[in-house]
Amino acid sequence: MSLEQNLAELSLTPLPTKTLVFKPKTAKTATPVPIVVFALQSTQTPSPLIAQAAGAKEPRLAKDDLVQEFFNVAAKEVSIYNLNKDLDGKIKFLVDQNIFNDEKATLEINVGSEKKTATVAEIKTFLESTSIEIISVDFSVAPAPAAAPDAATVAAKKAAAKKEKEATKIEDAKLIGITVDKTKDFSTWYSQVVTKGEMLDYYDVSGCYILRPNSYHVWEQIQDWFNLRIKRLGVKNSYFPMFVSAKVLEKEKDHIEGFAPEVAWVTRAGSSELEEHIAIRPTSETVMYPYYAKWIRSHRDLPLRLNQWNSVVRWEFKHPQPFLRTREFLWQEGHTAHLTREGATEEVDQILDLYAGIYEELLAVPVVKGTKTENEKFAGGDYTTTCEGFIAATGRGIQGATSHHLGTNFSKMFNISVENPEGADKDPIFAYQNSWGLSTRVIGVMVMTHSDNKGLVLPPRVAQYQVAVMPVGLNSKTSDEQKKAINEGAEKIEKRLLAVDVRATGDYRDNITSGWKFADWELKGLPVRLEFGPKDLEKEQVTAVRRDDGSKYVVKLADLETRIPQILEQMQTELLERARKDFDAHRVVVEEWKDFVPTLNAKNVILSPWCGVAECEDDIKDSSAKKDNGEEEEVDEKAPSMGAKSLCIPKLQPPFKPNQKCVKCDLKAKYWCMFGRSY
Amino acid sequence: MSLEQNLAELSLTPLPTKTLVFKPKTAKTATPVPIVVFALQSTQTPSPLIAQAAGAKEPRLAKDDLVQEFFNVAAKEVSIYNLNKDLDGKIKFLVDQNIFNDEKATLEINVGSEKKTATVAEIKTFLESTSIEIISVDFSVAPAPAAAPDAATVAAKKAAAKKEKEATKIEDAKLIGITVDKTKDFSTWYSQVVTKGEMLDYYDVSGCYILRPNSYHVWEQIQDWFNLRIKRLGVKNSYFPMFVSAKVLEKEKDHIEGFAPEVAWVTRAGSSELEEHIAIRPTSETVMYPYYAKWIRSHRDLPLRLNQWNSVVRWEFKHPQPFLRTREFLWQEGHTAHLTREGATEEVDQILDLYAGIYEELLAVPVVKGTKTENEKFAGGDYTTTCEGFIAATGRGIQGATSHHLGTNFSKMFNISVENPEGADKDPIFAYQNSWGLSTRVIGVMVMTHSDNKGLVLPPRVAQYQVAVMPVGLNSKTSDEQKKAINEGAEKIEKRLLAVDVRATGDYRDNITSGWKFADWELKGLPVRLEFGPKDLEKEQVTAVRRDDGSKYVVKLADLETRIPQILEQMQTELLERARKDFDAHRVVVEEWKDFVPTLNAKNVILSPWCGVAECEDDIKDSSAKKDNGEEEEVDEKAPSMGAKSLCIPKLQPPFKPNQKCVKCDLKAKYWCMFGRSY
Repeated sequence: MSLEQNLAELSLTPLPTKTLVFKPKTAKTATPVPIVVFALQSTQTPSPLIAQAAGAKEPRLAKDDLVQEFFNVAAKEVSIYNLNKDLDGKIKFLVDQNIFNDEKATLEINVGSEKKTATVAEIKTFLESTSIEIISVDFSVAPAPAAAPDAATVAAKKAAAKKEKEATKIEDAKLIGITVDKTKDFSTWYSQVVTKGEMLDYYDVSGCYILRPNSYHVWEQIQDWFNLRIKRLGVKNSYFPMFVSAKVLEKEKDHIEGFAPEVAWVTRAGSSELEEHIAIRPTSETVMYPYYAKWIRSHRDLPLRLNQWNSVVRWEFKHPQPFLRTREFLWQEGHTAHLTREGATEEVDQILDLYAGIYEELLAVPVVKGTKTENEKFAGGDYTTTCEGFIAATGRGIQGATSHHLGTNFSKMFNISVENPEGADKDPIFAYQNSWGLSTRVIGVMVMTHSDNKGLVLPPRVAQYQVAVMPVGLNSKTSDEQKKAINEGAEKIEKRLLAVDVRATGDYRDNITSGWKFADWELKGLPVRLEFGPKDLEKEQVTAVRRDDGSKYVVKLADLETRIPQILEQMQTELLERARKDFDAHRVVVEEWKDFVPTLNAKNVILSPWCGVAECEDDIKDSSAKKDNGEEEEVDEKAPSMGAKSLCIPKLQPPFKPNQKCVKCDLKAKYWCMFGRSY
Repeated sequence: MSLEQNLAELSLTPLPTKTLVFKPKTAKTATPVPIVVFALQSTQTPSPLIAQAAGAKEPRLAKDDLVQEFFNVAAKEVSIYNLNKDLDGKIKFLVDQNIFNDEKATLEINVGSEKKTATVAEIKTFLESTSIEIISVDFSVAPAPAAAPDAATVAAKKAAAKKEKEATKIEDAKLIGITVDKTKDFSTWYSQVVTKGEMLDYYDVSGCYILRPNSYHVWEQIQDWFNLRIKRLGVKNSYFPMFVSAKVLEKEKDHIEGFAPEVAWVTRAGSSELEEHIAIRPTSETVMYPYYAKWIRSHRDLPLRLNQWNSVVRWEFKHPQPFLRTREFLWQEGHTAHLTREGATEEVDQILDLYAGIYEELLAVPVVKGTKTENEKFAGGDYTTTCEGFIAATGRGIQGATSHHLGTNFSKMFNISVENPEGADKDPIFAYQNSWGLSTRVIGVMVMTHSDNKGLVLPPRVAQYQVAVMPVGLNSKTSDEQKKAINEGAEKIEKRLLAVDVRATGDYRDNITSGWKFADWELKGLPVRLEFGPKDLEKEQVTAVRRDDGSKYVVKLADLETRIPQILEQMQTELLERARKDFDAHRVVVEEWKDFVPTLNAKNVILSPWCGVAECEDDIKDSSAKKDNGEEEEVDEKAPSMGAKSLCIPKLQPPFKPNQKCVKCDLKAKYWCMFGRSY
């Protein structure tokens, strides 16, 4: 027994402990089972021993996002008190056998930034209440030979890992700010940016997230912009129930096949089992179309164009990611029925243009408009158009929003038909239908595109606050009179800007330094900071500082109402230009297969001549996937091993050379197609 | 065998049949089990025989809303083809034994307005596919003595029922319009108004309804109005997940007790059983407050004011009613946390004023603001304020929207606390919290208040279309040139009004008469119809006709942009005035108990001096309930037997007489309290 343990037994000094979370290597399709290790601070817990005790492969210290997901705290804040009944069966729990030696010993446990003490007996009682199985481990023994690399390898790997981790850290990271580099550990960076930027918080139901005002405001701006424009097209908003009966959901087999494994089912209400189980909509085609059949009686009832803003549920078992892959998400879904194919297809393009407008005009994110291949289109529709975006940091494409022409496939299934206007003796006409949707995923794309190591960067048109006025240069020497004048001046600036519909606020906190204040607003993505200090007061000016590039503008107060909106608009424009330059530089024309994979691996998407044959598309995907060489460490980062999907056949088709061949096979090229690894 | 049956056997004439739906007398808390009777047209199906065969009490022909709910068609359109597997176990199905005599016979079945024929064998196959148990009944035998009234009684009752039914019909009801009188059969009237007025449609999951554009637009107007005002107060919108884990939901016992029997549970995703069952939020206190505890670190984080527009689910087993009692409904829920009690309670009143504003300024529905008694307040809160409305047609009060002060009850439970700003040595301060919500129920109250036997009446401020221009007076003698001029003139009026933000449309249908067109728009609640005919063209005017009272205004085209908005505003004001007069006339001061029940039975709510004691409130409720005398026929119409609840203690308290006593007991009166039967 160590001295520490001896003292602890006498209840003189509580014994320090540590709680660590490890993630084992996990198949891409499986949910990881984290391993929690509770040990004395002084106990070494080598990875091979953990692997052996937990029956898991290659455990490594888990990243923040996994810890957040399971324990709802940051990795360094996790403690045994984050364990609870719900985690039973979802995690492995290893306990240093030295801990439980003596029931009367007192332990010290880090809970967040505090230290709490408890006796071993108390901790045992708590752990029993969680029902989680305790695997007791003797960390002093050598691991079984099969799993045990020699000590030198372990030490070398450890040193390498430490070095790698250090390397992702930002040199001068502030406590409140982002602590990892966007280019080096994108996944942790993203998780920090969205949470510390107060866009979103992790929620205790896995795969669900809280949209905080900083992100929900972006969504509201999108809603306003889109509503105005679809209403001009004659689309009306409505609301259909979130529930679908099994019978109705399963009506369109092709369609539902893709969703069936992800449908959440309500089977009980209060303590009553429901006779028929009821699904939560994964999308609303089958919810809405029986009523379209009922409402559409004559060609005069066409077009029928309805849209709804709602939430849908797709219970994916893949690793969730804020905004990009979530089990519940907000979206709009438009569903329209037309008398003619032309009426329908015209609308498909109008809506796609609006989606591109949301990305480019509001979110300052460039997209490529195009059509999905047969392999990638919406099942049950005739064709799918799409806006495809690009995440430069990972070199992956991302589907932005889709507008589908369903042809008469659904109208025949649901009998949405009208008497032929040319006469009752002619065949009835089945309505030509479209559906189109855009989700809160757009917010994730926006964050990934513009934000940096200081935190969020929000485009001015969607930012909750566009400017914040803050008094600066006040110190102990500033007279009360001058302080008052500066504060009042700042408030006046705020009011004048609010009066011209600039979303302005003020930050008059006097308990923190200006530097801290600036960093705080930078973290949250404020587009323009307005500094107002003694010199500004004197010269009747204010200093505007842009979030994206730090550029400063001295604005005469007399010009406030015209200049500030100009600066905001300029920032908006330049954000888009910068992102477009990035996307353009990484959309590389590849005509020969030998260049395909290297170009892909250099974090590009690819524009290639392609034959249009589905099997060739599959072949491209397979041939561009990195084979697992057993060296991969991080299964969540799927990009490197993933093959290239077809992203879209762009609307803008450059001319072909004579006899241009497909990039992969020997057939003649039919289109330029954009390929890439993708979210 | 009858001649008809003989002919049918020869497949010469199909045998006419009928499908009828009956509703048995059902306990208030139970879901009714409808009885479907499929019989030859010529077979008499007396109620006692149905009762005996189905083992049910007092079956009566079901009303439209029940038939809609179960079979998704109007009562007179129901056929055996509306039966399906999902109804198995939910209905009783009686078949006239004469029908199945001969497999080869052909039957005629009314399907909607069409007649379809099928052989008995085909029908048997169809019915087998539904799995519904067939109870074969010989309707020619006399019912068992116990259940059998004498023939004369049956005949007399039948005649009386027929007469009563006839009496509710509207004399000159048009085919497309409302067919029953609001004052005589309110429940059927309401169901017709909301469906034929295209506010809503019944949905195939019971208790859920589709909000069509005509109602959703009202909701959008409410959202815009309310958002603008709460944002001025510093409230921000956000979105929290719809799912709650069992553990979190059950955290606040008092609070959840009221909701537990109505919570819908997701237990399965795809084909996987979930390890932990997940609830769909019935309200979001327990969803949000753990995060409030996390986000609120210092007094500078207060007040935290968040609102969300979402849908919640309360799986009630009571009879659902469009807008008023639905299993999923849209609402907003605001949840705020404050440093001081004063800050919180000030907001409670500000929000209540906004709720009253939605009712009065937007929906033209008068409300009484007040406080709920301890019996009726929100469980877990300190006090509840409310807007109480009144449905004149039934004489019942209706809770309009509530704004609760939660005190520190929840903040103590969830540990939402901050360090005392007066010093770390003082006790920490638990946040003072409010929650407040307003749901789509408001739309139902609006419909019930203003609409009439012609259909919906929509207040101009919330109507999807405020005016519709329609050419009139065109007939076979009208020259093409004149037709063209009138149509173009109408279109010009439409455009001019749109340009000044009047929500205008045009109706240029030429396949229906003007009368039909007028009736169609009246049904859908259009506030003002603009008729433009040859005389109007000539005199440069348009004729405006108000929906609510039919008053006509001749408007010079030169005055269009000023006069039409005036007429709309005048209608808005007068709708409110009229409804207020009604409410005022039916809010009767009662000081003596002997007058209480008679006043209540005369379809009034009551303002009485009251002692404030909970037991006395219970006593008032019991003593004002009509005892079941066995004569009641319609259990859904609960109003007549229901006791009077306390609706609120109005903010406006008239002075008391000296020594004013409680209306019910001998104690001294403490408040004027509003009592009434209620929704």
